[in-house]
Amino acid sequence: MAPIEALVEQLLAGNRRALGRVLTQIENDTPAGRRALAALYPRSGNAHTVGLTGSAGSGKSTLTGALAREFRARGRTLGIVAIDPTSPFSHGALLGDRIRMQDLTADPQVFLRSMATRGALGGLAPATSGVVTALDAFGKDIVLIETVGAGQDEVEVAMMADTTVVVLTPGSGDDVQAMKAGIMEIADVLVVNKCDLPNADLLARQLRTIVEASRSGRLTPIVRTASALGEGIGDLADALEEHRTYLGASGVREAHRREQARHQVLALARQRLIDRLVMAQGADGRLDALVEEVAARSLDPHAAADALIGEGR
Amino acid sequence: MAPIEALVEQLLAGNRRALGRVLTQIENDTPAGRRALAALYPRSGNAHTVGLTGSAGSGKSTLTGALAREFRARGRTLGIVAIDPTSPFSHGALLGDRIRMQDLTADPQVFLRSMATRGALGGLAPATSGVVTALDAFGKDIVLIETVGAGQDEVEVAMMADTTVVVLTPGSGDDVQAMKAGIMEIADVLVVNKCDLPNADLLARQLRTIVEASRSGRLTPIVRTASALGEGIGDLADALEEHRTYLGASGVREAHRREQARHQVLALARQRLIDRLVMAQGADGRLDALVEEVAARSLDPHAAADALIGEGR
Repeated sequence: MAPIEALVEQLLAGNRRALGRVLTQIENDTPAGRRALAALYPRSGNAHTVGLTGSAGSGKSTLTGALAREFRARGRTLGIVAIDPTSPFSHGALLGDRIRMQDLTADPQVFLRSMATRGALGGLAPATSGVVTALDAFGKDIVLIETVGAGQDEVEVAMMADTTVVVLTPGSGDDVQAMKAGIMEIADVLVVNKCDLPNADLLARQLRTIVEASRSGRLTPIVRTASALGEGIGDLADALEEHRTYLGASGVREAHRREQARHQVLALARQRLIDRLVMAQGADGRLDALVEEVAARSLDPHAAADALIGEGR
Repeated sequence: MAPIEALVEQLLAGNRRALGRVLTQIENDTPAGRRALAALYPRSGNAHTVGLTGSAGSGKSTLTGALAREFRARGRTLGIVAIDPTSPFSHGALLGDRIRMQDLTADPQVFLRSMATRGALGGLAPATSGVVTALDAFGKDIVLIETVGAGQDEVEVAMMADTTVVVLTPGSGDDVQAMKAGIMEIADVLVVNKCDLPNADLLARQLRTIVEASRSGRLTPIVRTASALGEGIGDLADALEEHRTYLGASGVREAHRREQARHQVLALARQRLIDRLVMAQGADGRLDALVEEVAARSLDPHAAADALIGEGR
């Protein structure tokens, strides 16, 4: 295997195979992956990153594929990161989605990467961020990040993007009133997908009411699409380009990226600290002794955690 | 407000109001909540804890309610912890579920607590564990923990129980083959709910094939229920009681609880470390300086995390 520095050079020269191999190192958080990221990070920051999230069954994958084709028709190059949830529920449906996206991968100007969510220790967001950085440094104009908006982690990943798109569908059982605060907090663009279904008008009207009520500066656009029929995709691409222009003109992008950097540095530091702690404690058996006390109910878990990190007791 | 020690005494004497107030302190992870937990932890460990998880729309809430009524008819007392996801999607549906469970709360031998999932820093599992500890110490025979199996966090919470029930429904789009490894890893009891729907037989047969193929000692029981019609609930209660007996006789429970204790102590220690780090760094502005470097792309996030915790550089 070529040293990582050579792979990074090949990646920066436009070699897709080198990109794929570097992504594997980054995803697995190997020392080589970290060196690659350190080299690529200063070359990144030029792509427009777009996160798409929404309930399972909202047609996000079909929409992401249609959007990618639209941007290709506009001459843009694309990276696509598709996040599959760790949860055993809904995995099957996603496999089908991924297969439907395969035709895109025949286009040399599109690079699709599927990622599985990891364990509970907060690995998804950093791994995704690293993959996005590499696609960005590779020179893609736009990086689409598609996640199932099922849990906190997935929503967080969609929020790592410059522009976050929330996809809703009529009659999905999503109660728009109940989730309005959540939507307004994360959505830069709202999409009513499957707009050929009954109640699409009702959903769009409800969203408009919420958007107007929570107005604070920019009015969140609401785009109607039927991704399976190819309807409204041009409008969505327009809305995304407008948001990119808005971000660049207003200085909002810099503030947003700074906030993201802070969040990411803290998340990584947390992970490092726990790795270090487990290594140190594993060596002298102190963790095992504390676990025994907790299992025997002679010590509660909080007191054990304090003891482990050298507080209290 | 009464000092927490007095509230704990009242809780242990069977006072429901005191229990509610202690739970609020525990959920909010206040110093009083930690003192309460330290006092309650040695009194816990007697309840049979049962986690129920499954896709949104699998009828888990109705099933949880029906199961609670069945156990009440058998003379058992119950705590119920219902976890609502943080994600903005599906919140509305859950509100309806909670309302349908309200009739149970008129029974003084049932204590229902709804919890919202928290932020991203791993707060859900410890908070839930604390609530379960308090309900257990309060003297409930059985504590049911109901979660939406949408993300890693939610599945993790269901796995904190002695017995984990995975609820599936025919025709829900869950591809059983695709998720078989995930199911077998977490399920102690499998439920085919809405068994009056078409394809229920097919789903049950698929599950049986998977269970038999992955046999390693105990054969995971498959129970057919129609929670809305009240069918099969007695069978499910029987399966749970059998699992409890199995756990007690085999020594599996002790190993399981020890593993859970380890996981929990590490999760809490991680949280403590990051809290301490943020406090320390916030004071001297070092974090801010590192964030600026990352935002300016002169330093990558991993290198910044290393610098923050005093590694590398």
